[in-house]
Amino acid sequence: MGIGDDAAIVDLGGPAVLSTDASIEGVHFRRSFAPLDVLARRAVHAAASDLAAMGAHPSALLISLGIPSDVGDAEFDALIEGFARASSELGMPIVGGNLSTASELGITTTVIGRDVDCQLLRSGAMVGDSVYLTGPVGGAALGLAALLDGRTDPTDPFVRAWTSPVARFDASSRMRGLASSAIDVSDGLSADLAHVLEASHVGATIDLDAIPVFADFHERCASEGRSSDALLLGGGEDYELIFTAARADLDGGLATRIGRIDAELGLRTTRSGRTTSISPRGHEHR
Amino acid sequence: MGIGDDAAIVDLGGPAVLSTDASIEGVHFRRSFAPLDVLARRAVHAAASDLAAMGAHPSALLISLGIPSDVGDAEFDALIEGFARASSELGMPIVGGNLSTASELGITTTVIGRDVDCQLLRSGAMVGDSVYLTGPVGGAALGLAALLDGRTDPTDPFVRAWTSPVARFDASSRMRGLASSAIDVSDGLSADLAHVLEASHVGATIDLDAIPVFADFHERCASEGRSSDALLLGGGEDYELIFTAARADLDGGLATRIGRIDAELGLRTTRSGRTTSISPRGHEHR
Repeated sequence: MGIGDDAAIVDLGGPAVLSTDASIEGVHFRRSFAPLDVLARRAVHAAASDLAAMGAHPSALLISLGIPSDVGDAEFDALIEGFARASSELGMPIVGGNLSTASELGITTTVIGRDVDCQLLRSGAMVGDSVYLTGPVGGAALGLAALLDGRTDPTDPFVRAWTSPVARFDASSRMRGLASSAIDVSDGLSADLAHVLEASHVGATIDLDAIPVFADFHERCASEGRSSDALLLGGGEDYELIFTAARADLDGGLATRIGRIDAELGLRTTRSGRTTSISPRGHEHR
Repeated sequence: MGIGDDAAIVDLGGPAVLSTDASIEGVHFRRSFAPLDVLARRAVHAAASDLAAMGAHPSALLISLGIPSDVGDAEFDALIEGFARASSELGMPIVGGNLSTASELGITTTVIGRDVDCQLLRSGAMVGDSVYLTGPVGGAALGLAALLDGRTDPTDPFVRAWTSPVARFDASSRMRGLASSAIDVSDGLSADLAHVLEASHVGATIDLDAIPVFADFHERCASEGRSSDALLLGGGEDYELIFTAARADLDGGLATRIGRIDAELGLRTTRSGRTTSISPRGHEHR
């Protein structure tokens, strides 16, 4: 309703979940990383991931674009195509927008969800819960390193991990009623899990060898001289979800059990029976 | 609910009205125009004006900030103070935000309203309706010209018209059930009224001498060599509201009757019994 009016009217049918996010050229991406439709799609999935982490259904999207003078018609059309693709993939209609000139390309998204799962706040983790992860982490950080290095091969699975994330609504909808808390891996597993631990006043122990990884992850880390563990714990922008749940039997296609929630505050890792206390090592907040 | 989580949960109690807007340094404002708290407050009122034009109550605000490296702590605090002041003035809580570095200061706002008056869409104007305006127009354009010229005296009423607009929720709430359509004057009286006329498939005749003006408006136009009529019809960013209503007796403290809706398409002005067809002369859309 109200197309052409000053604002869109949307019936959200109850409480709404709201989040805003920005993806700025030179800060969050470079145009050299991928075609603009890919970068536009990515910005929407990254923003929508916050809704998935709250167990909400994606219901509306607003996009404010800052467009520099060197963005031509073809590039602008590519942006719109990317937004349309993400909107279609997520079943999330674009209900509002704004266009402005700017000195750098900027995509500011506001995402609105409904039917939030109020058990999925960050503060719900309980001592004895298991910690689950919905997919491999560390891959997007390797991809970003390649992209920054000019290696933009779109068939590279690590490059794809960074350029083409998927907001995990599939997993969050199946975890409804089962999980006690959730968060998405945007800053890195340890940093994001630390937010849950702080909000829930608990600690956790993570089995390093249980964290799912991409095929060839360890080989790629070795060939680039990167520490696998540092990337697993600190690599951001994978947009997988971390769940906590009382049940320890949810391992399987949906998620992998990677650890447990403890009464002892702080974050610990284990490997081969040896436990190490670690400080959260997220990638730099920008 | 959910402070510290990925997104805010807000109960909007029914259909919501959503709009997004950007205010970018060098495009929409210069930092030299006014202290940052004033510019921050202005950005929120300008965005919220879209909700007022739909008869909605302001209910939530999200702000995404792009902050250049030369914005120090004191300037950042001033921005936050301006947002808090606008939030308080409008009774519109800030429920979400995002911070990013950027090469220019950018304020992207998403405003959410509820209890929309569905009669206040742009398409409701009827032949025979009166056209009302809630306050003087053309003043902000004179103020912007002064600001661009380096004359930033904050006591100048024209400068204040540009720097310190007020989203007219007072007027829109009192027009509920009385008005057939509404729009805010962001691009200029003739351009904004033209949107209503097109959406409603009608025309209008405006009495130039009935349009309310600031004290000393004509003197200021004369001293600056500007055409009063061009500024009245084309000056934007006053954020007053244009209403149409069947009743012709709403003139008074709330709004001024400035013309009527006609069956003949297009926009006409009258002065001293002489009628002139005009093309919409809004200020440049950026």
